[in-house]
Amino acid sequence: MNTLTENSGLYTDFYELSMAQGYFLSGKKDDQTVFDYYYRTNPYEGGYLVFAGLEDLLQVLKSFQYNEENIAFLKKAGLKDEFLDYLRDFKFTATIYSMREGEIVFPNEPLVRVEGNIIEAQLIETLLLNYLNFQSLIATKACRIRNVIGEKDFADFGLRRAQGLGGVHASRAAVIGGANATSNVYSAFNYDIPVTGTQAHAWIQSFDYEMDAFRRYAEINPDKTVLLVDTYNTLKSGIPNAIIVGKELEAKGYKMIGIRLDSGDLAYLSKKARKMLDDAGLDYVKIIASNQLNEYVIKSLNDQGAQIDGYGIGTELVTGKDTGALDGVYKLVQTNGIPRIKISENIEKITMPGKKKVIRYFDEDGFFFRDGILLENEESTNRLFHPFQADKNTYVSHCSSEVITEKVMENGEILIESKTPVEINAYLRKRFAQLPDEHKRFISPHIYKVGFSESLLSVRDHLLMDIRSKIR
Amino acid sequence: MNTLTENSGLYTDFYELSMAQGYFLSGKKDDQTVFDYYYRTNPYEGGYLVFAGLEDLLQVLKSFQYNEENIAFLKKAGLKDEFLDYLRDFKFTATIYSMREGEIVFPNEPLVRVEGNIIEAQLIETLLLNYLNFQSLIATKACRIRNVIGEKDFADFGLRRAQGLGGVHASRAAVIGGANATSNVYSAFNYDIPVTGTQAHAWIQSFDYEMDAFRRYAEINPDKTVLLVDTYNTLKSGIPNAIIVGKELEAKGYKMIGIRLDSGDLAYLSKKARKMLDDAGLDYVKIIASNQLNEYVIKSLNDQGAQIDGYGIGTELVTGKDTGALDGVYKLVQTNGIPRIKISENIEKITMPGKKKVIRYFDEDGFFFRDGILLENEESTNRLFHPFQADKNTYVSHCSSEVITEKVMENGEILIESKTPVEINAYLRKRFAQLPDEHKRFISPHIYKVGFSESLLSVRDHLLMDIRSKIR
Repeated sequence: MNTLTENSGLYTDFYELSMAQGYFLSGKKDDQTVFDYYYRTNPYEGGYLVFAGLEDLLQVLKSFQYNEENIAFLKKAGLKDEFLDYLRDFKFTATIYSMREGEIVFPNEPLVRVEGNIIEAQLIETLLLNYLNFQSLIATKACRIRNVIGEKDFADFGLRRAQGLGGVHASRAAVIGGANATSNVYSAFNYDIPVTGTQAHAWIQSFDYEMDAFRRYAEINPDKTVLLVDTYNTLKSGIPNAIIVGKELEAKGYKMIGIRLDSGDLAYLSKKARKMLDDAGLDYVKIIASNQLNEYVIKSLNDQGAQIDGYGIGTELVTGKDTGALDGVYKLVQTNGIPRIKISENIEKITMPGKKKVIRYFDEDGFFFRDGILLENEESTNRLFHPFQADKNTYVSHCSSEVITEKVMENGEILIESKTPVEINAYLRKRFAQLPDEHKRFISPHIYKVGFSESLLSVRDHLLMDIRSKIR
Repeated sequence: MNTLTENSGLYTDFYELSMAQGYFLSGKKDDQTVFDYYYRTNPYEGGYLVFAGLEDLLQVLKSFQYNEENIAFLKKAGLKDEFLDYLRDFKFTATIYSMREGEIVFPNEPLVRVEGNIIEAQLIETLLLNYLNFQSLIATKACRIRNVIGEKDFADFGLRRAQGLGGVHASRAAVIGGANATSNVYSAFNYDIPVTGTQAHAWIQSFDYEMDAFRRYAEINPDKTVLLVDTYNTLKSGIPNAIIVGKELEAKGYKMIGIRLDSGDLAYLSKKARKMLDDAGLDYVKIIASNQLNEYVIKSLNDQGAQIDGYGIGTELVTGKDTGALDGVYKLVQTNGIPRIKISENIEKITMPGKKKVIRYFDEDGFFFRDGILLENEESTNRLFHPFQADKNTYVSHCSSEVITEKVMENGEILIESKTPVEINAYLRKRFAQLPDEHKRFISPHIYKVGFSESLLSVRDHLLMDIRSKIR
């Protein structure tokens, strides 16, 4: 397969190219546009989203291009020579404003704003959506899992069940959201993430006796022995054998790190295992659990007093079960300085026109109070309004505030420093602590209010009236 | 980001490397092993799976390697020098038997069998699972959609909501399963897939009037005009304007191809649109629908007589909603000629030991009757048995039969010819026609029976007794 870095310009839907050609042939190629990226519904029926994927996106945009092989392919696909000549020299030079990775964000907020000519801003739509939608989805899942796990360890084990190459991004996003490590060596290498993993059933099966397999593993890895105990029979064979090996390691001056449970009832087995280990004087040996875990299962295991010290979480984490896809969209909001709107049969799908910024307001204790969406040129506002019900509004004049978008790319150059996923998670932790608990609930979380300034709503209302008068 | 082709050996879970090092240091590196790939549960509560992903997998295996940068990373991750020296010269040379891509397959059948030394067979586990699980999941989804659409067109529009780079594989699998084309230019380029796409709302919004946008698009693309009609108001603005442009194209000797509905009630709007177009003499103009479609919605639209001629299907197709991940596993079944087994608390998770083959039996009309799993050295069998209830068995002596696995890789060389996704779909169509209807139902499909030969079950039972006697 051809690599993405060499063929980045093709990572798009064909209609972006078809439209771009249209703009080019219509003399619009230098039209200045503004596009917003935002989403409409929190994943997992939750109360927030963790924004992620930005750095990967900016890296690809930096090299966004069309080589001769690409041009030949696009010609075959029906694009015209004049436009292909333009693409041959294409470089992405738009200015991008964005939330920070690891920021906690909410529906309808412009998370990313792209300002550039209509062709460059249009062509990157699919790429931007693909990268940001997915990593934000997985970072949010990981954050929810971290929220129930507290300070215990959890690792991403998902690559085998990830959606193909999506696993590469999933592991990065999992660590941004709260995983301590990943089993995915490729992503660990690419993104500087701690990597983890010991053994699978095949290791045990490849020996005549489980005991031989355990003993041999401990000989080779005396300082990092974690034994998988469920190949034959967890309580009758796996744990008793692991205890023997644990004592043998002790005799040599080592401490076994843990055992791993990968099937059966994890609450029941972990409690039995804890007692067996403790009775043998191995109270320092940790119990790691894996097998179809998610935030709900972990919460339920906790509620039943399961004795689990660490978790390996795979499928549900890396596929964002049960949401599967964030509904993020990328909409044109301005051309050549004029705000634009898109109407819809569904009132909530009407776009918010013009160049905007997001201000976060904090209460006196430093907790998030409201987010406000204002016109870019507004300094601040006293009052935030519901988008359609003017009687629903809130004063924010008593609040401290912070503009939460920053310029991240300009003239093809990335303006922000590269951060590791672990560093990004540190920012998320800080922010998550400022999010009131009622928005963190799994069941019916309280909706965090995002309001609009009066000036912005007035721009929108004028456009709405104008368009409706044209239709009638 | 570093490319997969250059760093293919890292596309694995760390425990595969940790185990491989263990085998190496235990003098087992030349142990001959057999691993089976199979899955346990049909996705989407359906009656079958479409096998896909093989060619991509084989391509990566061909280049599976560790470069110096990888070795340095693995050293940092804790692997030992002796083993890293081995990895430096590593080449994948195992023999692989597999179902054909596009084959219809069923739970518990060995879909792929890997025969090689224990290190090479172990190291590729994660890669194999990642590629085959996902593409099979999506090919199956596309096949279900094709099953309700009949011979109308449908295109994959999913890249923007795909799980990151998973979109690359998703589009290939979508076409294998039945999509006619994709909007994903990168996958079209890589896999030789027809590409499709016209315009989005931004095109319309970038003009002062919808009519100008339509007219301009038709001028540039007179022979491939499909107009998106829901930017402002589908019935009052979009369709009337599209009709005017359609008549203008007619006057110039062209025929407008279609209109696209992307919001609102698609049954209601498509019927209205059909009537409006027909009344204007544009009965040849097709109605394309998109917006959150899946096989159930399409079936329901069909039931209500929706007038839709083609479909654009995105999110649910490329993310395999609501299954999200196929539960495929890769299990050691033999070492050095000796069959191996893994026991489990769950009876259905006990592995089937030894080297096996799959034979498909057909009834007198050429429909699939039963699949049988036999020991590799068995020529055929008269009777197939349920794995645990010997009284459940069926004679297959009256059936014609076919061994449905073939050798696909040996000594690092791919033995099968490369096929395009469209070619693979042609094979699937043939096979799908041989699958009895009762297995294609969406609700409670009849379970297709996969039986085992008496000899195979006897090998398993001996191993089970042996292990149980060791535990007690």
